[in-house]
Amino acid sequence: MTAGLFLTFEGGDGVGKTTQAAILEEWLTARGRSVVRTREPGGTEVGVLVRDIVLHHRGEVAARAEALLYAADRAQHIETVVRPALERGDVVIQDRYIDSSVAYQGAGRILGRDEVRDLSLWATGGLLPDLTVLLDLDPARARERLEADDKPFDRLEAEKSVFHDRVREEFLALAASEPERFLVLDAARAASDLATDIQGRVQALQGGTVGTAD
Amino acid sequence: MTAGLFLTFEGGDGVGKTTQAAILEEWLTARGRSVVRTREPGGTEVGVLVRDIVLHHRGEVAARAEALLYAADRAQHIETVVRPALERGDVVIQDRYIDSSVAYQGAGRILGRDEVRDLSLWATGGLLPDLTVLLDLDPARARERLEADDKPFDRLEAEKSVFHDRVREEFLALAASEPERFLVLDAARAASDLATDIQGRVQALQGGTVGTAD
Repeated sequence: MTAGLFLTFEGGDGVGKTTQAAILEEWLTARGRSVVRTREPGGTEVGVLVRDIVLHHRGEVAARAEALLYAADRAQHIETVVRPALERGDVVIQDRYIDSSVAYQGAGRILGRDEVRDLSLWATGGLLPDLTVLLDLDPARARERLEADDKPFDRLEAEKSVFHDRVREEFLALAASEPERFLVLDAARAASDLATDIQGRVQALQGGTVGTAD
Repeated sequence: MTAGLFLTFEGGDGVGKTTQAAILEEWLTARGRSVVRTREPGGTEVGVLVRDIVLHHRGEVAARAEALLYAADRAQHIETVVRPALERGDVVIQDRYIDSSVAYQGAGRILGRDEVRDLSLWATGGLLPDLTVLLDLDPARARERLEADDKPFDRLEAEKSVFHDRVREEFLALAASEPERFLVLDAARAASDLATDIQGRVQALQGGTVGTAD
């Protein structure tokens, strides 16, 4: 049986994670792989409820409560969606994972990087991706893209730009600390060029785990 | 200013926590103390939503997800309700806290005692009660009381009796490990006798922190 593969996309809102995930899914599917596309928060029924609390609660959500809610969503999602898919030999392509928690909560908020990471690792029983694609983009440019799409901003998106700058720096620092797991790409490049780079890295990962088109 | 006091009631469902909390509140109020009665889960708006997920979700909630949801409720509750009350000098009387998490999750489920406790302590920034009253009762007897009240069982209450026996043992072990924090009472005794014992212990705690009736 083919081994499962766990791929995550990271980066701020508006950098093109959804576009790249869709292209990668199509590419893998054409090569005979069974793909599960998912995201956090919100990948499970429990997660949808959690997301609703975090993003749309009218009052203040305490920093630790918010981190724990995200971790709960993650625990449920990994246990009921991701691990079963990996055990079936599927490729899981996930929008946001541990690195988003560390970047948003650890750097941007009052909580420490290490404690947020430890919390996520506890939630998931220590599951890390085989590959994490970081789509890096100046937050001001990402915001222009979101405005062009005329999407309403949610609570996190509406935070001040200094926050998004810190998140970006934190993502880059995480990637630098684990170069073997991360592929960092300049998200201002053409989507097709980015897709080619991502496919190359996934191909290199296979060592028998990703089927080829032949 | 009078120092705040954090009192918790622990024990299975049907042991009389609500009754004793009400009597204690009345007793303290008569002595001029400002009292905040609260509970977990469900003490905040976020907590009500969390409680709804844990108790009434139709599908399976993964063990780690459940522990994290309870911890999120706790973090929000401590930060927005309990700490402000203690800082005002109020007495907080709370139905269930860290010990319930450890007893239900740590003993009854697949998670470890220490990791569940660590999670709760992280959620609360390390806040432990000044006094924890454990109302101890044979679960079969507690169940008879609940049936006499004709209350519908929620998901936790409906678990098998061997589970409730393990929870009871776990509560007693926790109390034995922290005798200075716990007051263990035989909940089969008359409510008025139990109330007298609890008042005695709260009185002894004061050292200037609990006002007297004079």
